[in-house]
Amino acid sequence: MVKRNAGKGFSIVIAFLMMWAGIMSQTSASASEKEKQEETKIKNVIFLIGDGMGPAYTTAYRYVKDDPDTPEMEPTAFDPYLVGMQKVHPNDPKENITDSAAAGTAMSSGVKTYNGAVAVDNDKSEVKTVLEEAKEQGMATGLVATSQINHATPAAFGSHNESRNNYNEIADHYFDLTVDGKHLVDVMLGGGTKYFERDDRNLVKEFKQDGYSYVTNKQALKQDDNEQVLGLFAEVGLPKMKDRTKDIPSLEDMTKSAIDRLDNNNEGFFLMVEGSQIDWAGHANDVVGAMSEMEDFENAFQAAIAYAKQDKHTLVVSTADHSTGGLSIAKGGPYTFNPEAIRGVKRTPEFMAEQIENGSDVKKVLQKYVEYDLKKEEIEQVEEAKVDLKDNKDAVSTAISNVFNERARAGWTTDGHTGVDVQVYAYGPGKHMFTGMTDNTDQAKSIFKIIKNKAAEKEKEDDQEEDEEAEKTGMIQSIKNSFLSLADSVGGLLSSN
Amino acid sequence: MVKRNAGKGFSIVIAFLMMWAGIMSQTSASASEKEKQEETKIKNVIFLIGDGMGPAYTTAYRYVKDDPDTPEMEPTAFDPYLVGMQKVHPNDPKENITDSAAAGTAMSSGVKTYNGAVAVDNDKSEVKTVLEEAKEQGMATGLVATSQINHATPAAFGSHNESRNNYNEIADHYFDLTVDGKHLVDVMLGGGTKYFERDDRNLVKEFKQDGYSYVTNKQALKQDDNEQVLGLFAEVGLPKMKDRTKDIPSLEDMTKSAIDRLDNNNEGFFLMVEGSQIDWAGHANDVVGAMSEMEDFENAFQAAIAYAKQDKHTLVVSTADHSTGGLSIAKGGPYTFNPEAIRGVKRTPEFMAEQIENGSDVKKVLQKYVEYDLKKEEIEQVEEAKVDLKDNKDAVSTAISNVFNERARAGWTTDGHTGVDVQVYAYGPGKHMFTGMTDNTDQAKSIFKIIKNKAAEKEKEDDQEEDEEAEKTGMIQSIKNSFLSLADSVGGLLSSN
Repeated sequence: MVKRNAGKGFSIVIAFLMMWAGIMSQTSASASEKEKQEETKIKNVIFLIGDGMGPAYTTAYRYVKDDPDTPEMEPTAFDPYLVGMQKVHPNDPKENITDSAAAGTAMSSGVKTYNGAVAVDNDKSEVKTVLEEAKEQGMATGLVATSQINHATPAAFGSHNESRNNYNEIADHYFDLTVDGKHLVDVMLGGGTKYFERDDRNLVKEFKQDGYSYVTNKQALKQDDNEQVLGLFAEVGLPKMKDRTKDIPSLEDMTKSAIDRLDNNNEGFFLMVEGSQIDWAGHANDVVGAMSEMEDFENAFQAAIAYAKQDKHTLVVSTADHSTGGLSIAKGGPYTFNPEAIRGVKRTPEFMAEQIENGSDVKKVLQKYVEYDLKKEEIEQVEEAKVDLKDNKDAVSTAISNVFNERARAGWTTDGHTGVDVQVYAYGPGKHMFTGMTDNTDQAKSIFKIIKNKAAEKEKEDDQEEDEEAEKTGMIQSIKNSFLSLADSVGGLLSSN
Repeated sequence: MVKRNAGKGFSIVIAFLMMWAGIMSQTSASASEKEKQEETKIKNVIFLIGDGMGPAYTTAYRYVKDDPDTPEMEPTAFDPYLVGMQKVHPNDPKENITDSAAAGTAMSSGVKTYNGAVAVDNDKSEVKTVLEEAKEQGMATGLVATSQINHATPAAFGSHNESRNNYNEIADHYFDLTVDGKHLVDVMLGGGTKYFERDDRNLVKEFKQDGYSYVTNKQALKQDDNEQVLGLFAEVGLPKMKDRTKDIPSLEDMTKSAIDRLDNNNEGFFLMVEGSQIDWAGHANDVVGAMSEMEDFENAFQAAIAYAKQDKHTLVVSTADHSTGGLSIAKGGPYTFNPEAIRGVKRTPEFMAEQIENGSDVKKVLQKYVEYDLKKEEIEQVEEAKVDLKDNKDAVSTAISNVFNERARAGWTTDGHTGVDVQVYAYGPGKHMFTGMTDNTDQAKSIFKIIKNKAAEKEKEDDQEEDEEAEKTGMIQSIKNSFLSLADSVGGLLSSN
């Protein structure tokens, strides 16, 4: 009796030791194993693109947002989440600086292609996008932008075209492309009525017939909670943040509304959000407009982060597709950048130019929208530009931009794009996949991996659910038995005294 | 008998369980605990600064180094080590774009100060540098640069002065500053004979009297292996890499020589290496010179990484103090950057200009040093610049630079600095301390922490060496006893049958 008990007790103890070792070795999983475990926790992916938002933009924005009354320079909402930078060169036979379509395609499909290509390869064959993969796996999908929603960047996620300029075809795709009979994109929020309500086709009507809500202002967007929605808030692009009326939703409003709708899907969601007009302001060499759109984008980024922090199963990645305009912080010699010259402007140069072009007095317009006093020569510069309007429709807007560029000391080298690496920010499970120096194609590759992992995990879960349940029950019983035997054994040993 | 054995056996088993748990919980230390453990492994710190090397420089350099015969764009030596970016704004009452002195001071001391300040605070009081802390802790120290070695950046690590322009005083400091009777800097390699051999003082003679080797060319540097050395290879700055004769060491040569000497010290070393003239080329808006100096710096970085990989106790950190010139990759509209226009140039514009200024024919000089054919107008541009030499000593050099800038499509906005965030690269134990978005002062704070940790660890080690030895002996005996008792107990239980 004693022998049996003692032997059993000893073997139980050994079993316990081994169990313990097993548990502990799981706990002490290597960093990379932990990261892999983490990846399987991802339910949703929010991918935010600041179009044109190169390193000079995020730094300049920090100068602009800085509180001049404190000694330190306050961080932007992006700063805590910097994980690396990405390379953005295209695979174009003639150009080696990317456009938004090629960069969008790289990030949506993992394929480098020619400038202008919308999710097609160099031979113009369609390449699969992460949004398509997400929809195939039963995830909800969304595209949000401040440009027309069928502009290059969102288009590269939700359509395929040999040219970004085929706006109507791209809009058609949003309705015509289906996965298992379902439309590819559940939530579309941005501008572009011009392309959706046409003489040859009314996509708004078609979407409504298929159960989508259609909203055209901020209030309607807020009141509607349909999981599928088309929201078009401008004929083409939305007004810039500084110029918006209360009827126009911000990028943050649209992002929050998209998340609220997509969040209802049990299989998770993929959402692409673009701060489209940082780039547009960069093309116009308009530092005031660029900083306006940075703020709009920062607010949307913060909304995504706030959701992810609360949700815990959402990966947020934010980056740019390229930098625009060759913006520099200081120019022409002096070691000063004057953000107050940007802070003190209440509307964009294009907004003021439109009023002037419509007959308003230059001086009055500038005095109304600029908080500091302008010099006589600065006002004259804008006056003189009116004469050039016949040859250059942007003459007044450019003249106004130049006043602020000179005052702020913001330098520009091009009305096109530049090739500099751009920053990558990430938060949530799987963020390690985006750290260090990456290529823009790596972003798609990582998201494909995440979505496919999700799918594989789900399949495994479905298959093994019963087995695992049985296994769990068995394990609990076994532990219970071990304890009973140990107690029995120890009791036996003690009582054998 | 049985009772005693059984009780003892059971308690031993419990003890084993607890020991196991202890071992396993150590193994399963959290990531941050592992990082802390790693920090204590750091023996040496190599800190490399690419002066002026902002994000457009490292990206442009990737375009220049790209092999046009392969489809992909090859990574630079920096790419695999990107860990984040740093903020570089100074704390200057008048300027908010940093100079090299203020940035150097931030990285050497952890204190933001005014432009021009060399390791002094805004009130001009001296601030302690990581190099001083290293020397106090018995580490060997080195400064390597391609500028004069008493230029702003190295000066901010090895001296204190209210102005970077007091070159003689800074050179004097390198001799006069001592810690426990020892000179502050063991290895100084760079340019600057002008400042070390003066009418009023001969620092070379003084250093030699104190046992330092003095070398002035590449061969002498190679043949000498003294642990303390002053190597001055030019009157002021070294020629740029593209222009060097075989007597002039490269930044890689100097870095390797410094490491070889410093490596002899049992207490480890701190070495600062500066690619000084990336910035100088940036000031001159000379893309050819800038890429020449990027290559020089990349080679030095690779030498540091190679040493660290083999040594395993060396932390390598590389960053820039700021970006210079507002360089952009592409300019003026087109989406192209033409690195072949840079690759095909064998000497810097300043080198060619000097020959032209000394009477050589413009066309012949350009044809000799430029591998591709220049257009008639390009040659004429340089001819015409000769006329302006009276008013502008850099006229010819600038005209030559402009030819390459136009061909390459390299944009510039200033002959000064810009405020953009700069990249941070790191390798080795402790690299996690430099990841994400950091401030330039964080670099010094982290290095101080590492050096102080080293010192604390050493003290602890000295104090506890005997105790630990005793403890180890005791623990081994205790484990041995446990095993003996367990065997005894089990044996007893079995034999009691």
